[in-house]
Amino acid sequence: MTAMNRGSGREAEQPRVAKVGILGKGTVGAAFRDLLEQRADMVEEVSGGRRPEISGVLSSREGDFDRILAESEVIVELIGGTDPARDYVTRALRDGKHVVTANKQLVAQHGDELVSAAKEGGAQLRFEAAVAGAIPVIRVLQESLGAVPIQKVTGIVNGTTNYILTEMARAGLSYDEALKQAQELGYAEADPSEDVGGADAAAKMTILARLAFGAPISLDDVPYQGIQEITPDDLAYAKDLGLSLKLLGVAERLGDRVSVRVFPCFLYSGHPLAPVEGPFNAVTVEAPVITEITMSGPGAGGAETASAVLGDVLSVLSGGSPLFEENSKLGVADDVNSAFYLHLEVEDRPGVLAQVAEILGENEISVRSVVQRGLGDDARLEMVMHEGPESRFSAALERIAKLDFLRSPPRSIRVIEEEFV
Amino acid sequence: MTAMNRGSGREAEQPRVAKVGILGKGTVGAAFRDLLEQRADMVEEVSGGRRPEISGVLSSREGDFDRILAESEVIVELIGGTDPARDYVTRALRDGKHVVTANKQLVAQHGDELVSAAKEGGAQLRFEAAVAGAIPVIRVLQESLGAVPIQKVTGIVNGTTNYILTEMARAGLSYDEALKQAQELGYAEADPSEDVGGADAAAKMTILARLAFGAPISLDDVPYQGIQEITPDDLAYAKDLGLSLKLLGVAERLGDRVSVRVFPCFLYSGHPLAPVEGPFNAVTVEAPVITEITMSGPGAGGAETASAVLGDVLSVLSGGSPLFEENSKLGVADDVNSAFYLHLEVEDRPGVLAQVAEILGENEISVRSVVQRGLGDDARLEMVMHEGPESRFSAALERIAKLDFLRSPPRSIRVIEEEFV
Repeated sequence: MTAMNRGSGREAEQPRVAKVGILGKGTVGAAFRDLLEQRADMVEEVSGGRRPEISGVLSSREGDFDRILAESEVIVELIGGTDPARDYVTRALRDGKHVVTANKQLVAQHGDELVSAAKEGGAQLRFEAAVAGAIPVIRVLQESLGAVPIQKVTGIVNGTTNYILTEMARAGLSYDEALKQAQELGYAEADPSEDVGGADAAAKMTILARLAFGAPISLDDVPYQGIQEITPDDLAYAKDLGLSLKLLGVAERLGDRVSVRVFPCFLYSGHPLAPVEGPFNAVTVEAPVITEITMSGPGAGGAETASAVLGDVLSVLSGGSPLFEENSKLGVADDVNSAFYLHLEVEDRPGVLAQVAEILGENEISVRSVVQRGLGDDARLEMVMHEGPESRFSAALERIAKLDFLRSPPRSIRVIEEEFV
Repeated sequence: MTAMNRGSGREAEQPRVAKVGILGKGTVGAAFRDLLEQRADMVEEVSGGRRPEISGVLSSREGDFDRILAESEVIVELIGGTDPARDYVTRALRDGKHVVTANKQLVAQHGDELVSAAKEGGAQLRFEAAVAGAIPVIRVLQESLGAVPIQKVTGIVNGTTNYILTEMARAGLSYDEALKQAQELGYAEADPSEDVGGADAAAKMTILARLAFGAPISLDDVPYQGIQEITPDDLAYAKDLGLSLKLLGVAERLGDRVSVRVFPCFLYSGHPLAPVEGPFNAVTVEAPVITEITMSGPGAGGAETASAVLGDVLSVLSGGSPLFEENSKLGVADDVNSAFYLHLEVEDRPGVLAQVAEILGENEISVRSVVQRGLGDDARLEMVMHEGPESRFSAALERIAKLDFLRSPPRSIRVIEEEFV
């Protein structure tokens, strides 16, 4: 177990001006430069007299990293990706320069290395902007809940997929139609694969899980699944059962192990994430001591990200230290409990439901609700299971898929049973 | 303009043990002592080696304040009320002892005095637990959003009243029935007047407004109204219009003035506070840079409050400093804009709607929706206005109340028109 805690303090000899070097000239970089200029007076006042001034801006075409590093007290990394950001950030931290970054991939993939570099240099590393835009979930996990044993973190941490799922449910659009609309409105990139495939959410959940559990989770420990296979029918049928579909990240403590995963999932209307719609992000943190708290807001646009970066810069200049605790005793879980929704299109003949129920029963899977609808010669079965080990459900599903009365392959989607209010 | 920022730093000479003196032996005091003992290892680890130890506990029957003060580095004030808490806290701060308090009345009524005392002693004052239990709204306003110009803070900050209103809407209970149920379940005190009358919410909104705007708001600047006059009919009729009723605190910046108020208010379903039900609290912060973020969770029970207090103690021991900025240029607004719901029981005869509409028109109040229902010889008019100065609506209401076809006095309740998603 190690702890990383080094404050800059606020010693009397600190210069009045705080030099801030900016790496990256994209949308967020531009938004941050504007915001820093607009709010310099406020930062100076609130930080007790430290006036921020830009020491230099590095882009792929101009600027010299070594010069900027030498002249800066704080490095703000807004390049994205791991190369060359990883090299710049570790060098800055080892050199004792505080780093504020919005780079989720960097923190998720190389967290251990960055924490070591920060310890070595006695510098602060802050990354509020890497997860959920302006929603201060990192600070809440590190500081407000720093001494509370956290049980579970559930998040809608990708605005693109939440927008697409919302429009599919609301307007009955296909996945392709909803994606196209999201691209036209600027909620999805031209190449949306990192968002829709779940990789973006997995990186963010890696970061949240490390902070929540102090465990050395790496991105490789986080299985993820995207939303590309979701159909409007999935959403329409489930609506009848009072369920709404989200791409969720779930990080939970299971005894001496943790599980971190990303998957499409149904929620009942009493879950605090059920009403989160459109391009919004939200995170629910559960702990026995606090029951649960939920934070929601717009996903990461340029202005929201810049605001989170400025909050981190302010914290660096005001002294204090981010709390980052590592507890290497926690391992990664193999099997986890989940509830499932199961949708079967079947031939309408006697004994169909009985055979499905028998297979589920033999695998000790308990059924929460069943709706059967006749469709001429066919019938549709919509079932929701209670929570149980995923391995047992998979075994049952394998047998169900081979039943001769199925008209099409079975469709299954996870369900979270919890309702809070 | 003044700024209060003194970190404890984390100087090398700091002792390993951090002595914590506790004032108050009630529910929260007991919950905090338990939590501090359970989590002492974690606090030591996360704070970089400061192990908390209780130096003494003061109750009205035992303990000596001067001795506890002399032997403590941090004073945790959980007595409540202003006397003797005010004397103890100001003396501790002037003496350079950090103070963590859950006392909303103390901070709301004597904020200026406490801030002066903290400056004088170079001590930290933290009060996360004074507002919204475990929801870290204070830290978010002070730190994450410390450099962002905040436009508006809207909160459901009293769990008792939210529980009562939820049950009135859900089960059609009268106010008295719902209050009795809340008392039986422990959501309301034997004497509920501070909660149901709005005074508790007003104190909390005073604190949030000071932090959001850096303005020297005092409790006297905050008009408040409770929920005692709300009837099940108010809730039932409004449900048809898609409205739900909450006791809201609203703090907003209006040019060079601010307005802070507490009142029962209807919300459309798209408002982020509309789905907040039962004894929950939630706060929405709006700022142009971040659009808006919402935080929600259970209201202040003993465990939740103790958890917020422990988060503050951890922050004190980890160095850092709460940011507290005062901007005396902002005054308190006289008139504010509101939208209103207006409910009239009238004689069903021609020209009734025309006369009401004429009075509203003459006062330049624009109508958003009207529902008229026949009830035999009578009719019911339910109207929702668009936002306009409250003074104009009051003038119109005064004239409407005198119309001879009214069967009962008009009922009016504020409405927030904003829908975010």
